[in-house]
Amino acid sequence: MALKSFIEISPDSHFPMENLPYGVFKPDESSAPRPGVAIGDYVLDLQVITSAGLFNGPILTNSDCFLQPNLNKFLEMGRPAWKEARATIQKLLSSTEPALRDNASLKQKALLPAVKVQMLLPMAIGDYTDFFSSMHHAKNCGLMFRGPENAINPNWFHLPIAYHGRASSIVVSGTDIIRPKGQGHPSGNSPYFGPSRKLDFELEMAAVVGPGNKLGESVDVNEAAEHIFGLVLMNDWSARDIQAWEYVPLGPFLGKSFGTTISPWIVTLDALEPFGCDAPLQNPRPLPYLAEKISKNYDISLEVQIIPAGEEASYVVTRSNFNHLYWTVTQQLAHHTINGCNLRPGDLLGTGTISGPEPESYGCLLELTWNGQKTVSLGGATRKFLEDGDEVIFTGCCKGNGYNVGFGTCSGKIVPSIP
Amino acid sequence: MALKSFIEISPDSHFPMENLPYGVFKPDESSAPRPGVAIGDYVLDLQVITSAGLFNGPILTNSDCFLQPNLNKFLEMGRPAWKEARATIQKLLSSTEPALRDNASLKQKALLPAVKVQMLLPMAIGDYTDFFSSMHHAKNCGLMFRGPENAINPNWFHLPIAYHGRASSIVVSGTDIIRPKGQGHPSGNSPYFGPSRKLDFELEMAAVVGPGNKLGESVDVNEAAEHIFGLVLMNDWSARDIQAWEYVPLGPFLGKSFGTTISPWIVTLDALEPFGCDAPLQNPRPLPYLAEKISKNYDISLEVQIIPAGEEASYVVTRSNFNHLYWTVTQQLAHHTINGCNLRPGDLLGTGTISGPEPESYGCLLELTWNGQKTVSLGGATRKFLEDGDEVIFTGCCKGNGYNVGFGTCSGKIVPSIP
Ligand SMILES: [Ca+2]
Ligand SMILES: [Ca+2]
Ligand SMILES: [Mg+2]
Ligand SMILES: [Mg+2]
Ligand code: NI
Repeated sequence: MALKSFIEISPDSHFPMENLPYGVFKPDESSAPRPGVAIGDYVLDLQVITSAGLFNGPILTNSDCFLQPNLNKFLEMGRPAWKEARATIQKLLSSTEPALRDNASLKQKALLPAVKVQMLLPMAIGDYTDFFSSMHHAKNCGLMFRGPENAINPNWFHLPIAYHGRASSIVVSGTDIIRPKGQGHPSGNSPYFGPSRKLDFELEMAAVVGPGNKLGESVDVNEAAEHIFGLVLMNDWSARDIQAWEYVPLGPFLGKSFGTTISPWIVTLDALEPFGCDAPLQNPRPLPYLAEKISKNYDISLEVQIIPAGEEASYVVTRSNFNHLYWTVTQQLAHHTINGCNLRPGDLLGTGTISGPEPESYGCLLELTWNGQKTVSLGGATRKFLEDGDEVIFTGCCKGNGYNVGFGTCSGKIVPSIP
Repeated sequence: MALKSFIEISPDSHFPMENLPYGVFKPDESSAPRPGVAIGDYVLDLQVITSAGLFNGPILTNSDCFLQPNLNKFLEMGRPAWKEARATIQKLLSSTEPALRDNASLKQKALLPAVKVQMLLPMAIGDYTDFFSSMHHAKNCGLMFRGPENAINPNWFHLPIAYHGRASSIVVSGTDIIRPKGQGHPSGNSPYFGPSRKLDFELEMAAVVGPGNKLGESVDVNEAAEHIFGLVLMNDWSARDIQAWEYVPLGPFLGKSFGTTISPWIVTLDALEPFGCDAPLQNPRPLPYLAEKISKNYDISLEVQIIPAGEEASYVVTRSNFNHLYWTVTQQLAHHTINGCNLRPGDLLGTGTISGPEPESYGCLLELTWNGQKTVSLGGATRKFLEDGDEVIFTGCCKGNGYNVGFGTCSGKIVPSIP
């Protein structure tokens, strides 16, 4: 049974009382960025709620964490603060609580129609790391580029493989993606140069780091969840021709760093709790620092749609699920710090492309078209890779009993290279 | 002939009037960080100089760029501001200028003995990229790990290979480096785990980015120098056993991210100008976006010394030179942005290990000991890789006619892993 709010919330909404995801927004072009929470078709302005003195729990009562232009200060405060904020906001929005419900002027200031506000990046991202934690994705990439003998490299089953990504080019959903230029893999002797001919999306999610760790200290895998605030949808746009030519031996660089899109709303681990499920059994058994008492994934349905250039309709190109991940986000975080690397509040840990076992669940065009050997159909149109004008839309949603806990969308449209 | 200051400056000093490198320091433990310039054995406090109204040129006269806790705002202002600041400071410190020379109380506040101040990171580093631009280093690594047939991968001669590094763990010279733990390359079937057994330094320098570029726009290679403020020494500490096991296919990650040390003083390109020299001829000819009208390196002598654990004397283990780089820093920056990736003021672009052609000029122990097949001798002691207690000290210096333009030192001592 769904929790009841004084706000009318459609049963299809991604943002009922059970969710309460955090973001950062501007009420209009000229106002300053501030934190907010999505509720139905509204955004609750946490700056206004703070100024009205309604965060009155022991931790938040005198805090300015929601008077900041991003969530980093709140992220740093950790789970006790997060739980208190969630309880306060859930109570404030409930159908039986008069404080906001019966205060018309406050309600008008604090609850803004979501369609009218401008969403921004929810946090300042110090470092962004991208993992490679779907076995199906790793296998498919290996089959295409190295053949069946050693499709998955032996290290893959022992550690969550990852690389450092580019933080500066992370953008919020809705930002256009400019097609990157660069060198492509040569067919003959010389590389070609120009706008990428193999532009792709990668269906990912990402963990947002809460409290960090000191340089030189490692986070215990069984305490790693205390360092994770929540999850977002993430599109790790990839130029396959640039990537293929540049990546040996130091990994992906310009094939990825032209843009990465995240959804504006961070869904907290607290909201995802009811959708926890067992992670896959790991064989070989991981080393002790990666062996968790409880190895947990989340049942989050993921879907990718494309609106082809010049059309209005969207077409589903893949359906996957977060629960396909072999390495959990807590294992990723513990591994990231085992060498003493310091994480900071707001850091972003991408899961890697989330492909399922069936061809209809592959998480990128590289896999769906098997590197351009076939096409995906979008109504009348077909694609091997993305064309200028194509818009890619991710959605993610957990189905509860009579309600959803959803992520909204993560979208971006491809625009031509700058000459 | 050296420029004359009213401060006595030893002819051996790295920091004469011709240099004037920028850093950030605290006069004492309790005071706030502020920008400074090294002059002989002193640090000039730019906050004090600003407050005294002595930055009186058209750009800086009302600027608060030196009232900041880091150099980012000054970096963003670009070369006109940098040239004006340099001219103002050079005049202020000259033997013929009374403003500071004859003001005893101002002089006492503004000129602090370098040994008494605490140096900090000079800038907030949004993103850190590490290149791989020494051909000798690339060849040696390839010979060790892939054999003579394809020692240098074909892409290497077409583009400056690079990977994204970890920004959070960059520390200033003098910070202890905690030996990382992690998984090492297996001899049998299973990886081993523990403190790294192959801890190494990498002799590098790094460019500090000034004005950035917009996402989607590329910097012309012939204008790239306008986006570079100056250079620092950099030690890209590397755990070779962790790196070897993890790096296929996405590149170095935990083998590097436990710590990177930079020197506290940024030597400006303006100060390095007299030491410019031709970069190596490039064959094959680079693509037009990498073809520079003037392809310039700098003649910077580099030296690595180690003080072995428990000893006081230091021993030189290698001598190299910045001019061994095949890809110039301007080519690196142009390449970095060709896909539209946005650089921001304060970003750090490492050159990669700077190895020369002769074995005595190799830039890391991996090459010097050929992956532990031989040893380097440090007086009585020998090393294959670094031991706990070893201190590694880099120096870099340009020799002018009667003066140096030097970088000071970039040092760090290895301390044991945290259990
Ligand atoms: Ca990815
Ligand atoms: Ca390096
Ligand atoms: Mg990306
Ligand atoms: Mg490093
Ligand atoms: Ni590789």
